[in-house]
Amino acid sequence: IATKLPKVGTTIFTVMSQLAAEHGAVNLGQGFPDFPVPERLIDALDRAMRAGHNQYSMMTGIPALRQAIAAKTERCYGYRPDVNAEITVTSGASEAIFDAIHAVVRAGEEVIVLDPCYDCYEPAIDLAGAKAVHVALDPLTFAPDWNAVRAAITANTRMLMINSPHNPSGAMLSEADMRELIDILDGTGIILLSDEVYEHIVFDGARHESVLRYPQLRERAFVVSSFGKTYHCTGWKLGYAVAPPALSAEFRKVHQYNTFCTFAPAQHAFAEMIEQEPEHYEQLGAFYEAKRDRFREQLLTTKFKPLPVPGGYFQLVDYSAISDLDDIDFCRWLTIEHGVTAIPLSPFYETPPSGQRLARLCFAKNEATLDAAIERLQKL
Amino acid sequence: IATKLPKVGTTIFTVMSQLAAEHGAVNLGQGFPDFPVPERLIDALDRAMRAGHNQYSMMTGIPALRQAIAAKTERCYGYRPDVNAEITVTSGASEAIFDAIHAVVRAGEEVIVLDPCYDCYEPAIDLAGAKAVHVALDPLTFAPDWNAVRAAITANTRMLMINSPHNPSGAMLSEADMRELIDILDGTGIILLSDEVYEHIVFDGARHESVLRYPQLRERAFVVSSFGKTYHCTGWKLGYAVAPPALSAEFRKVHQYNTFCTFAPAQHAFAEMIEQEPEHYEQLGAFYEAKRDRFREQLLTTKFKPLPVPGGYFQLVDYSAISDLDDIDFCRWLTIEHGVTAIPLSPFYETPPSGQRLARLCFAKNEATLDAAIERLQKL
Ligand SMILES: CSCCC(=O)C(=O)O
Ligand SMILES: CSCCC(=O)C(=O)O
Repeated sequence: IATKLPKVGTTIFTVMSQLAAEHGAVNLGQGFPDFPVPERLIDALDRAMRAGHNQYSMMTGIPALRQAIAAKTERCYGYRPDVNAEITVTSGASEAIFDAIHAVVRAGEEVIVLDPCYDCYEPAIDLAGAKAVHVALDPLTFAPDWNAVRAAITANTRMLMINSPHNPSGAMLSEADMRELIDILDGTGIILLSDEVYEHIVFDGARHESVLRYPQLRERAFVVSSFGKTYHCTGWKLGYAVAPPALSAEFRKVHQYNTFCTFAPAQHAFAEMIEQEPEHYEQLGAFYEAKRDRFREQLLTTKFKPLPVPGGYFQLVDYSAISDLDDIDFCRWLTIEHGVTAIPLSPFYETPPSGQRLARLCFAKNEATLDAAIERLQKL
Repeated sequence: IATKLPKVGTTIFTVMSQLAAEHGAVNLGQGFPDFPVPERLIDALDRAMRAGHNQYSMMTGIPALRQAIAAKTERCYGYRPDVNAEITVTSGASEAIFDAIHAVVRAGEEVIVLDPCYDCYEPAIDLAGAKAVHVALDPLTFAPDWNAVRAAITANTRMLMINSPHNPSGAMLSEADMRELIDILDGTGIILLSDEVYEHIVFDGARHESVLRYPQLRERAFVVSSFGKTYHCTGWKLGYAVAPPALSAEFRKVHQYNTFCTFAPAQHAFAEMIEQEPEHYEQLGAFYEAKRDRFREQLLTTKFKPLPVPGGYFQLVDYSAISDLDDIDFCRWLTIEHGVTAIPLSPFYETPPSGQRLARLCFAKNEATLDAAIERLQKL
């Protein structure tokens, strides 16, 4: 059978997690926390099941959850999306990204993505019969080169995808970036898809520049987020998309016939958690900032050179003082020979910058896990 | 914004559930049970969360669940699919159907569907850029006309979709049907997509003719099922697809970048439930047969004429002795004026048979719910 997706293999996250398991390595590869989900959330989910909330929810998500999302969005970004027309709950941000692309991108059109980027973007674009046009971020700061974006726009450009805080680098878009974006998109029919799953993991007093803060952007955007990163439950697969009514209507046509709705008891649990414990997401930045600072201090005792981490839960490290291997070989070697698993950066690129010697370490881990990793890395 | 899916509106199930809620009607429309999820399943899910199974599962589903599915499949149909290469866990049967279509159907190809059919088939086909070719089932027995299927096949036919027990009619494919199907597909490159979500709800000692029983069919098929119908939890959205390795590989490329994985704690719960309480699915047919028999008896005291129900949890009724309205108007009228919600059949068709006066009632309900409905229907 001839494949429709010739470029797709097993995702690097699965490959590295398997290798980590085989070799008993400390897994700082695939991005997931190893500390517990808030107990209130588990209790609320348990209560929802026992109260009988086990049948199909509304296709758009239960009203209480959409209300909680609307209120939280207003609180965080000063904009309250319409509960009925603008919010749709999905099976994780991945489904939301997939649905958004399939809702509006047609065969033959182009979607601009900024490399490096998360590996689910391009296959969804390919499946829609469209073409991903890759524009490189700065190889050191991971800032967008807006003139390169301008130059990549053609009459066929249907969508531009952005991601802040950025995976894998942690880079964040600034207010100046948002102004550039407004200028670039003004007068075009280009739809913006903004992946903001790390929205609450921002450091050093910085402000997350959600697309939802900017009327000129949100009027043409799908803004996608998820609860997995915020509530330490990446395996719960609950996310959502916020978009203006006309875009949400198209989005829902795909969602309705893709997954229809998501695990109903969790929707009840998140509705309760978001409303009753806003401190959780408000304090998440400080929680992760302490982890980042401690981990970076520790990394300075190794030969790895840590890059700045403005947001998210990943630490990029330059390993050129240790090895000349390319990043995939280096990450395999590090797992097999030294018992620590990292994620190479090249799978996030169409064309990786030549000579780049960077790997990604996830610090969403208990101190004991990070200590064990550091102890091994110090031996290098 | 021009729509990619001009035919898609709000699904009839949502429309009728909303109308039922507005008018306080007994909702026998959208198919979902109103009795509880087995307690063991809830307890197991709760334990899985508290044991920390809250991060990404393997993309294909947790091994224990795939093993349970393989063992159950062997027990039920005499065929044990390969745990690693042939089973993929999805966010409900809907995602599985969507992924299967997107994995193998290309723009310009044709997919044969048998009308009436569930309303998620055609939008997924349309999104893949392909064309749904509708072949009518017999308007009284809902049996396939295999010669009509033969006549519908062209050089562009990529897939044939079947569904047994059938939604909305409850009709079941026979062994003779499966022989016809083998004959039709032999020597072609046509892939079979078999929707078997009601596999355990079969009556009168009949045998469910799973495609997995037939080597000549399963070697070219995606067989899709779900736990929602079997375990009274349609809102949990956990399903799976069984397909030979080459088809599963393509399927997984889509699934990996659509939802990646499903709510992990529920996977643990089902693994335990399926293994430890096979009586649940073994006795499901008898459980629903008693409901069907009781409900049919009651319907005989009304002016509705119940059609035979070989499987599934829907009862078709002929309402021509009551009204001459078309089915959509009739179902609205029944909800608004008589407080009982049914689902019209025409949305399941591209071209509904003219003069058909059928509505679908869901009997996956407590006796009190069905009694309340019957009391209202008797007044007609
Ligand atoms: C779905 S596995 C990938 C998890 C993740 O977001 C990452 O590691 O970047
Ligand atoms: C997803 S709503 C439809 C439920 C169902 O399977 C039906 O009523 O046919």
